[in-house]
Amino acid sequence: MPRSNNTILLSPEELSLRLGKVVDLMKNESIDTAVINDNANIFYLTGRVIDGYLLIDSQTSSMQAFVRRPSDISGPTTFSIRKPEDIPAIAAENDISIGDKIGLERDNSSWTTIHRLSKVFEGREICNIDHILMAARSVKTPAEIKLIAASGIRQSEVYRKIPSLYQQGMTDLDFQIEIERQLRMAGCLGQFRIAGDSMELFMANILVGDNADNPSPYDFAMGGHGAHPSLPVGADGSVIKRGQTVMVDANGNFTGYMTDMTRVFALGKIADDALRAHECSRLICHTLAEIARPGVEAKYLYEKAIEIVRGENLEDYFMGHRQHAGFIGHGVGIQINEHPVIAPRSRDILREGNVIALEPKFVIPGTGAVGIENTYVVTADGPMQCLTTAPEEIIAL
Amino acid sequence: MPRSNNTILLSPEELSLRLGKVVDLMKNESIDTAVINDNANIFYLTGRVIDGYLLIDSQTSSMQAFVRRPSDISGPTTFSIRKPEDIPAIAAENDISIGDKIGLERDNSSWTTIHRLSKVFEGREICNIDHILMAARSVKTPAEIKLIAASGIRQSEVYRKIPSLYQQGMTDLDFQIEIERQLRMAGCLGQFRIAGDSMELFMANILVGDNADNPSPYDFAMGGHGAHPSLPVGADGSVIKRGQTVMVDANGNFTGYMTDMTRVFALGKIADDALRAHECSRLICHTLAEIARPGVEAKYLYEKAIEIVRGENLEDYFMGHRQHAGFIGHGVGIQINEHPVIAPRSRDILREGNVIALEPKFVIPGTGAVGIENTYVVTADGPMQCLTTAPEEIIAL
Repeated sequence: MPRSNNTILLSPEELSLRLGKVVDLMKNESIDTAVINDNANIFYLTGRVIDGYLLIDSQTSSMQAFVRRPSDISGPTTFSIRKPEDIPAIAAENDISIGDKIGLERDNSSWTTIHRLSKVFEGREICNIDHILMAARSVKTPAEIKLIAASGIRQSEVYRKIPSLYQQGMTDLDFQIEIERQLRMAGCLGQFRIAGDSMELFMANILVGDNADNPSPYDFAMGGHGAHPSLPVGADGSVIKRGQTVMVDANGNFTGYMTDMTRVFALGKIADDALRAHECSRLICHTLAEIARPGVEAKYLYEKAIEIVRGENLEDYFMGHRQHAGFIGHGVGIQINEHPVIAPRSRDILREGNVIALEPKFVIPGTGAVGIENTYVVTADGPMQCLTTAPEEIIAL
Repeated sequence: MPRSNNTILLSPEELSLRLGKVVDLMKNESIDTAVINDNANIFYLTGRVIDGYLLIDSQTSSMQAFVRRPSDISGPTTFSIRKPEDIPAIAAENDISIGDKIGLERDNSSWTTIHRLSKVFEGREICNIDHILMAARSVKTPAEIKLIAASGIRQSEVYRKIPSLYQQGMTDLDFQIEIERQLRMAGCLGQFRIAGDSMELFMANILVGDNADNPSPYDFAMGGHGAHPSLPVGADGSVIKRGQTVMVDANGNFTGYMTDMTRVFALGKIADDALRAHECSRLICHTLAEIARPGVEAKYLYEKAIEIVRGENLEDYFMGHRQHAGFIGHGVGIQINEHPVIAPRSRDILREGNVIALEPKFVIPGTGAVGIENTYVVTADGPMQCLTTAPEEIIAL
């Protein structure tokens, strides 16, 4: 990684592109000043994580950083603070405008944090800024797409090695540990950023046989019992047996930007219905990749997927069997659950530069989970470009 | 893990102990009803994670669960909901009292979540409940101490193997990956629960040589440059060289409850000052373990540590060199940063059943980080009992 003590690690052109998108959306809602504190948003706007606050002025399209930690960074627009209450005086001394309408990260910051910041900026109108950051971040710049594509290449290389990691008698957890190690050796950062108060996962969701059908409290596409009730999702210690599938959905964060990819492995011959459902998942991905382009409604992609599933009479198994997920795809980037959301009531409309993970999956009782997940970029005139290129067939272990 | 579809995995006696502490603290502040949604608090009160809300009635010392997911759990006090807005009607139908003063998790839930819940319970007085949960959770029950001790045994076993994992020419990251694998093979869940909006770490903080002196944005005891600016903490790819220390502070969560332990390894002979500082850290831990008992102020432990450090003229290196951490210890349990906090302005007073990680560490320029971290239980009449038992000396690689 580059060693720089500059607050902004992005090129001036890249910063300008990202800031421009945020500022345009701020102007639409007449927001004068955005105050950014969330790690994912700070990484988006600086290329690094700091403990502090970014102030964005929509009038001048400028950004200042008020930094608590680390102690060793600086830049032309960087001020050192001990606490957020220091910001107004420093801003006044340095002719930094703080407008009348202030956007705070109400979706991502705790009530206590927002309450405290609202007092710092007392007397001004406070509104939410998170939906604006999520909207800006949903349309990736060419540089961001390069970082996501780089993750896709490395994740795909590791996935190609997965069959060689299997040894007879392994449990799902044994297998997962070897996959984790290969990912880490290939440069995976491990970190798995998720938006939302209560989403949790460690490194991978690996589902063997009927464990795929165990409902989880988390809002992922698939569930699984998990190794412990404190983290009830994914692998549960099941031994991998003949006739069962092993679904691998493992961390693709190699660059601060991630790809999301799922592949299925199997020991011995599996049931015809499972093979058929797996091919149906591939067909859905390929079909949606063809029709997805700027202007298409996200919910249309969902409807198209359901149409294909119904044509195969596989509804009972789609997106889970005992418990069904409510979406078949999601934006991905700095976090695993960005926009657009591919769901029946989604109001998202596809735009060039969206990066979308499609994961039409099935749970077949007695066999396990099947289906693939790929990460795609929405291009100017379609089809979507696939960034996750490991073989899509069910691979024998 | 036990496979049960009961909402409450705790024994009735254990639930009663935990709920009793929460209810007593609620009564002190005349809070009628607590609404609990945070995963760590839900795990504390049920022994599992659910997507939903626990309602605690302080008058009757009773708790009801309103569960969105998973779909397959039930119990005598469990109701299925789709959204929090469903709660009041279900409560009314089932004669579940919702009082006039409601405690919500304002420190741990987003502003948007609290705003939504405040509307669900409109017309009632809303206050914070998080400090009450943190206070209750800071005094562990005997069953919780057993779970923490079990983590300590397994973490200590892995730490004893660490020297055997080293191979010549390894970077800090190579070494970390092998340590991660051993932890996972020993049953480490990987998950590292941290309270607070912006704390992030993956599995371990492993610091080699002068990387220990790189400031980080995160509020941990030590920093490190990290492998990527999206997660700027810990190992940065430094090759482990002769005369440098390798500080290992790795994930101790084996039971949903964690221990926190740090040990130092070294290649070849290291500087006398570093050896002296390491012994100073051990002396601080042993001294504080002797004097810590119920009724002692947390800040007194901090002051005692500083006194010992001054006696050795090591202030410049204590808790970092270029950037200093503001605490030398913290409570640990379901999350890594619980109460009490061992810091100069801490208002915490030790109680029997507190579990405290003490980590008086030094950064010696040219050598690296030294010092130990142990997890201790505060006993009725002292000294504290140590749960992390790997050898404390600097171990040769």
